[in-house]
Amino acid sequence: MKLIEDLVAAYRILAEHGVIDAYGHVSVRSDRNPKRYFLARAVAPETVTLDDIMEYDLDSTPVDARGRESVRERFIHGEIFKVRTEIGAVVHNHSPSVVPFSVTNVPMRPLFHMAAFIGDGVPNFEIRDAEKGTDLLVKTPYLGRALAKTLGGCPAALMRGHGSVTVGETLPRAVGRSVYLELSARMQLQAMMIAGSGGKITYLDDAEVGASVPVQEYNRAWPVWRAKALSGLARPA
Amino acid sequence: MKLIEDLVAAYRILAEHGVIDAYGHVSVRSDRNPKRYFLARAVAPETVTLDDIMEYDLDSTPVDARGRESVRERFIHGEIFKVRTEIGAVVHNHSPSVVPFSVTNVPMRPLFHMAAFIGDGVPNFEIRDAEKGTDLLVKTPYLGRALAKTLGGCPAALMRGHGSVTVGETLPRAVGRSVYLELSARMQLQAMMIAGSGGKITYLDDAEVGASVPVQEYNRAWPVWRAKALSGLARPA
Amino acid sequence: MKLIEDLVAAYRILAEHGVIDAYGHVSVRSDRNPKRYFLARAVAPETVTLDDIMEYDLDSTPVDARGRESVRERFIHGEIFKVRTEIGAVVHNHSPSVVPFSVTNVPMRPLFHMAAFIGDGVPNFEIRDAEKGTDLLVKTPYLGRALAKTLGGCPAALMRGHGSVTVGETLPRAVGRSVYLELSARMQLQAMMIAGSGGKITYLDDAEVGASVPVQEYNRAWPVWRAKALSGLARPA
Amino acid sequence: MKLIEDLVAAYRILAEHGVIDAYGHVSVRSDRNPKRYFLARAVAPETVTLDDIMEYDLDSTPVDARGRESVRERFIHGEIFKVRTEIGAVVHNHSPSVVPFSVTNVPMRPLFHMAAFIGDGVPNFEIRDAEKGTDLLVKTPYLGRALAKTLGGCPAALMRGHGSVTVGETLPRAVGRSVYLELSARMQLQAMMIAGSGGKITYLDDAEVGASVPVQEYNRAWPVWRAKALSGLARPA
Repeated sequence: MKLIEDLVAAYRILAEHGVIDAYGHVSVRSDRNPKRYFLARAVAPETVTLDDIMEYDLDSTPVDARGRESVRERFIHGEIFKVRTEIGAVVHNHSPSVVPFSVTNVPMRPLFHMAAFIGDGVPNFEIRDAEKGTDLLVKTPYLGRALAKTLGGCPAALMRGHGSVTVGETLPRAVGRSVYLELSARMQLQAMMIAGSGGKITYLDDAEVGASVPVQEYNRAWPVWRAKALSGLARPA
Repeated sequence: MKLIEDLVAAYRILAEHGVIDAYGHVSVRSDRNPKRYFLARAVAPETVTLDDIMEYDLDSTPVDARGRESVRERFIHGEIFKVRTEIGAVVHNHSPSVVPFSVTNVPMRPLFHMAAFIGDGVPNFEIRDAEKGTDLLVKTPYLGRALAKTLGGCPAALMRGHGSVTVGETLPRAVGRSVYLELSARMQLQAMMIAGSGGKITYLDDAEVGASVPVQEYNRAWPVWRAKALSGLARPA
Repeated sequence: MKLIEDLVAAYRILAEHGVIDAYGHVSVRSDRNPKRYFLARAVAPETVTLDDIMEYDLDSTPVDARGRESVRERFIHGEIFKVRTEIGAVVHNHSPSVVPFSVTNVPMRPLFHMAAFIGDGVPNFEIRDAEKGTDLLVKTPYLGRALAKTLGGCPAALMRGHGSVTVGETLPRAVGRSVYLELSARMQLQAMMIAGSGGKITYLDDAEVGASVPVQEYNRAWPVWRAKALSGLARPA
Repeated sequence: MKLIEDLVAAYRILAEHGVIDAYGHVSVRSDRNPKRYFLARAVAPETVTLDDIMEYDLDSTPVDARGRESVRERFIHGEIFKVRTEIGAVVHNHSPSVVPFSVTNVPMRPLFHMAAFIGDGVPNFEIRDAEKGTDLLVKTPYLGRALAKTLGGCPAALMRGHGSVTVGETLPRAVGRSVYLELSARMQLQAMMIAGSGGKITYLDDAEVGASVPVQEYNRAWPVWRAKALSGLARPA
């Protein structure tokens, strides 16, 4: 139950931070069965409540749909949970400062300690390499597998012209990574403009990334974010 | 009645998203008579209520004004409804990230799947080509026709130094297009700055646009937007 | 009384729009005596109430101070009212997108019809030309006269490294000009970035400016802005 | 007690202005013992209450911890208070427009009178010069001393890839400097973009900085900021 509440909070936190609009989603692996995960039905994130949370197997088939409509892109979550067994949570979003990076050849790089995980790699998923002429949505198992393959062992991947996916061992980590990926994208663009063409930007080096990532759990932020998000549950939606 | 409530919601949704300030407007074709449309009287969008909605014929003459002042730019709506018989709703706004594109020669292009419709063309209306020395307002039938001609069969048109117009078969589609045209403008500017002069930006290709536009109805967003907007109606303005 | 309420509303409107922070101010010429004007005492704009409004003569000496502290920069207002007899209201602010223009040689130009008044000229006041080594504040009659001289017959002037001043025949016009000067600054920067170095930007031409300025009173916005601002008066500050 | 309330207000003011997220902190020197300072326990700034404030000696050892967890970076505060005996308050934050400057070679310079203090110097702390391979946190006395040495006699210092520190004789001054350092960073980036590569920007000159800094106490803003912040204390967190 705690886990489901955490997941409801995660939806609302991401909406509150402007990281997901009406179309993003976040999942968490079941704490009772690692072959299952939870994800909200097709509804706007800021309105998600406990009753909207559905359970899926790793093929992204709902276990007990009770007439609730699944989001079409659930395969993002299932296919990543399949191959990243250490991962407990997945966020997919369209956060607005990240999309512009996804349509260029400029990689995101780690420049802010709160987003040091970017130093472990943020590949860019070009859906055309898997299938041409799509609407960019990852709405089949095949496309989910292709995205998971691009993601590899990384903490996040961009999705060209669409958004990004961030993962974490825990829900706070996956959510925190989405929040700070967005912020870091904004900072990188600004640093590029300040430094100017050919100017030098100091990114975190490998040792700094290695010292930062394992301890960065967003634990000071999470309880406040969660409390605020769930206080909203008491209000009529 | 449902349609009028939808229209009131549309005004408030657009104000809430920062897409219209005190001066934008949105119309919907009557569901009883395709030669009629509904539009609010000259009042700030965020305060529109049911009583502010007026009915017009396609020459933009009010059917039952009852002393209410019409907006001067109503011809934008009437003239588009005349020639675009498949269109059910029209939005005119000054959304802040779109205006800067309208004063340059750089076209808006589709780079974000939520704004794939841009790939069907967003021409730029130069009012000077129709009439010199105006205050830029489309306040005559002649200027309305000129704008409708520039728009042609496209989903949106910029208006130089002024704003834009978006259209849709339905109100949610026309409204959603205004929201995402603004967001896409911001993303395109950022992508241009990231890529740098001469840098490569990957836009949606024709097949991707073709796969996206017909299905993009903004249906997951609309009910939440509408509920929020109309909950405001209960409050004193 | 109506005029004083309008002035209180103006303070709150400007604070609400992010045009004035804790340090801006707005004045209105008395409707009973054109040699007098009203201005709030030295207090944060968003908290201004009726009791904070003080009356001044055109030398900016308070008529009835009753122990209330005057703002040091009141000479901006008095000296402009002296020489611009057609002007009824003056706003001084630090709006954040305008200051960057004030420290460059790039003039603000009219590109958005809502800010067409920029086409009538927005000179930049370099305080060093009047006095060296100041704290940039216009806190003497001499500096107020120098600013008024730079302003000349224009609707607004930048103040280098400090902010700007906008004037209008009426309070809604002076306030609206501050709101849209800020917005236009943001749009001009964006247009410059979109167009790129050497790229073409289409500004309003003289005929368009001439057709727009006389009619642009911000009359559709003002009643909503005012009602919102004064509804706040009922709340404890 | 007044001082502790001021400190609680400072946390909330900085959170409200977007200057600190879940991870910044602010301290004030004790008014009873200049060898002591106050700082909140490890908790999100926007939720800080009187009970969260802990007292430290200048080695940053808590005087009366009562089980409360100290923030790891408290050495920033203690080591600065040790060497800057005239300083009464220290703010550490990650304000988003400042971080991009910290990763470039472009210095912050004074261009806005409200942030004239930048003219007294804002050095950039490169933590690698003190210790390689850190997580960028100043979590040892040694790193605190290195930061204090970089700060020297200046009013603020950037921290590469991490954030900044601002100091002041009083809490309002240290807090105001954080608020206006962020704003000035945004303005400087915009001025650089407006002026273009090689374009001229007029910064405050030394005489203007000298005339501005001693009097800039942010005294008009502080009471409003404080009242708003503490009104929040009455609400459940």
